[in-house]
Amino acid sequence: MNTMQLEHDIQVLYQAQKSLAMVPLEVRNAFLKRLAEELERRSEEIFLANAADLLEAQQAGLATPLLKRLKFDIAKLKSACEGILQISGLPDPIHRVLEQRELDEGLILTRESCPIGVIGMIFESRPDALIQIASLCMKSGNGIVLKGGSEALQTNRALTAIYKDVSRAMLPEAVGAAWITLIETRESVAQLLKMGEYIDLIIPRGSKQFVQYIMDNTSIAVLGHADGICHCYIDQSADMQKAIRVSVDAKCQYPAACNAIETILIHSDRAAEILPELSQALQREGVEIRGDEQVSSIISCLPANEDDWSTEYLDLIVSIRIVDSIEEAVRHINTYGSGHTDTIICELPENAEYFMDAVDAADVFWNCSTRFADGFRFGLGAEVGISTHKIHARGPVGLEGLISYKWKLRGAGHIVAEYTGEHARHFTHRELSLHKEHSGE
Amino acid sequence: MNTMQLEHDIQVLYQAQKSLAMVPLEVRNAFLKRLAEELERRSEEIFLANAADLLEAQQAGLATPLLKRLKFDIAKLKSACEGILQISGLPDPIHRVLEQRELDEGLILTRESCPIGVIGMIFESRPDALIQIASLCMKSGNGIVLKGGSEALQTNRALTAIYKDVSRAMLPEAVGAAWITLIETRESVAQLLKMGEYIDLIIPRGSKQFVQYIMDNTSIAVLGHADGICHCYIDQSADMQKAIRVSVDAKCQYPAACNAIETILIHSDRAAEILPELSQALQREGVEIRGDEQVSSIISCLPANEDDWSTEYLDLIVSIRIVDSIEEAVRHINTYGSGHTDTIICELPENAEYFMDAVDAADVFWNCSTRFADGFRFGLGAEVGISTHKIHARGPVGLEGLISYKWKLRGAGHIVAEYTGEHARHFTHRELSLHKEHSGE
Repeated sequence: MNTMQLEHDIQVLYQAQKSLAMVPLEVRNAFLKRLAEELERRSEEIFLANAADLLEAQQAGLATPLLKRLKFDIAKLKSACEGILQISGLPDPIHRVLEQRELDEGLILTRESCPIGVIGMIFESRPDALIQIASLCMKSGNGIVLKGGSEALQTNRALTAIYKDVSRAMLPEAVGAAWITLIETRESVAQLLKMGEYIDLIIPRGSKQFVQYIMDNTSIAVLGHADGICHCYIDQSADMQKAIRVSVDAKCQYPAACNAIETILIHSDRAAEILPELSQALQREGVEIRGDEQVSSIISCLPANEDDWSTEYLDLIVSIRIVDSIEEAVRHINTYGSGHTDTIICELPENAEYFMDAVDAADVFWNCSTRFADGFRFGLGAEVGISTHKIHARGPVGLEGLISYKWKLRGAGHIVAEYTGEHARHFTHRELSLHKEHSGE
Repeated sequence: MNTMQLEHDIQVLYQAQKSLAMVPLEVRNAFLKRLAEELERRSEEIFLANAADLLEAQQAGLATPLLKRLKFDIAKLKSACEGILQISGLPDPIHRVLEQRELDEGLILTRESCPIGVIGMIFESRPDALIQIASLCMKSGNGIVLKGGSEALQTNRALTAIYKDVSRAMLPEAVGAAWITLIETRESVAQLLKMGEYIDLIIPRGSKQFVQYIMDNTSIAVLGHADGICHCYIDQSADMQKAIRVSVDAKCQYPAACNAIETILIHSDRAAEILPELSQALQREGVEIRGDEQVSSIISCLPANEDDWSTEYLDLIVSIRIVDSIEEAVRHINTYGSGHTDTIICELPENAEYFMDAVDAADVFWNCSTRFADGFRFGLGAEVGISTHKIHARGPVGLEGLISYKWKLRGAGHIVAEYTGEHARHFTHRELSLHKEHSGE
């Protein structure tokens, strides 16, 4: 796609989204149901395209875990379609009245949820990510520009074609198939990142380097995280068995996840007692331990250097450091952590509360595994990403990450001039109880 | 300040903010009360500094309106101190429990408000802006980097010195005076815009060009708006007197404001009837009218060209265009508008609702003046800015623009491994009623 063509497509998409925002909930839900049917009906098309991608990827020597992520089979299709139907069953995320206030007699202010606008979703490998995010965008009335991994190009094309066909059949002409588009090249991504006039939010999913590249190269808001350097701090007041159990789960249950821990901090008063059993438990799971000098004097391990404290291993490796106080643990986490997820193991509630207030992270846990930091486990339904930013949405982000709001003010000819000067009218600013304006369903 | 010194100061500020976030509400409120006292006690210092700024500005030939904004007198000081005391009386914006959910027995998830972190506030001229934003940051536990207009440098230095002295007297040593800093040069601003690691949000206040420069030159989130191209659409079903009354207020009550209208759209069926009286009313207030061809055939006016539809006059000038339908009006606004504030004058509720849903703007009004788009008039208390972005906060933004949240999860040794595999435990995901965790006051 040349740059002028892309610019034109995005402009058309930008306008189409404004019409999509007006599409009633019934139509958006009917779209999703029809989409699930069509994906199953046209599964052969998808599997053929996916087989072609897989063949090319194998020939290019793609690593097995990546091939597994790329493969789109009947099981993944079924689960994707279940996901779509779940989304169609959710309450309408837009047209919700969030706040209502009388400013003066007959002058009523309402804050109402609405779509963000156009989302740029840039993801690697997994074609199921396309289905999920595009369906969430339909539900919430957002336009979507998709860029998948080049190794999944044919699968992504097949999926996008189905979205577009269902769109032509089910949506008003002003929306049609224009609300969703697939871009295919790195050059297109570079161009997209500069189109802040039309793109409201970028959601990148992928490696740390990939997300960091996106963040460094756009002024558009980015929802996501580059690093997941998570900690488990074992306090002076820790229960030893909880400490070991949680540390092992947080490190080993899925070490490649962003919410797995990379560093264990342990209070010096408990190190000699806990470290031997902890290191045995970790080593049973095949974990390599890198300890500071004090740790090395208690258990046998590799030496940790300064770089270890800020390294996301994403592997069965853990660094361990001994600290002399909870304050030192907090300082370490706030210095080396990435503001993702950190947990304290302790029995003293006041220490837990101090830790959770003082650690500046999206998720701060007490006596449980960092691996719980996840939209599904949090009960958010769909997950659009995990954010370590503090603007818009933080931590695991559900559908509300795709939602903005607008202010509606209804009057009867009210003008500001009457509220100024000597005989100025006064605002009443009376909070009104909330009721759903558009019941929607 | 050289670049290394600035980097060091910001790093120290970044750490100090983490301690500020832990300062109890009573201490933050006591700080504000003491601050108001000290500002009054040391008013001579401030006025002397301001007199020096004014003298230099006069010698440099600064325009009278700018001199008026720069002048900081007893009236402005009194009103600033009243503002501070009001802020000290507000409920705690942090430590509020926003959401609470049982994930499983003994595993309780809480979403709790917290400071954003470090705010970069870049403003022009008005020294009272410094007092307001720094006080809001103290209340909400945020660190603040301030850059005022160079013409107000000595006043801003005097004000910052008082903040720092009160900080040393009232705050824990780990915070001290380090949570607030004043930077003084354009080079420092350029450097600040690149310090995304330490700065969480930039709030620029000033001219359109100034805000646009900030937005174009940082990957840090920016709260604000560059353009305020606001519209009044007079519908087929409009009440003529409301149309005239609101148009005149929205254009003339304070034409230099961002929420003043620049364009009036009028339905073709009503143009011949309404335009003559409307133009008389506007001309009585000294407004220059620029109309499209059809408008010119009804009233005498200057011709409007394509550029007029996207020009923010900030002056007693208005462009008028005739449209054939409400859809055309919406299309015009979504094409040329800046997503700030737009109003419809009409008697048919269905037209009003259509307009308010279809116009993609922060504020969409019905039968009232766009000039109501303001944090104080909306009843938000303090205003930190008006945002035309759809991320984080939109429209007039109160204290909640300085607030983020964190997720706290409290368990009893819970691990994720138990929720996977064949005998997986199931999440209960039971919503819990909200109660204030820290009553605070």
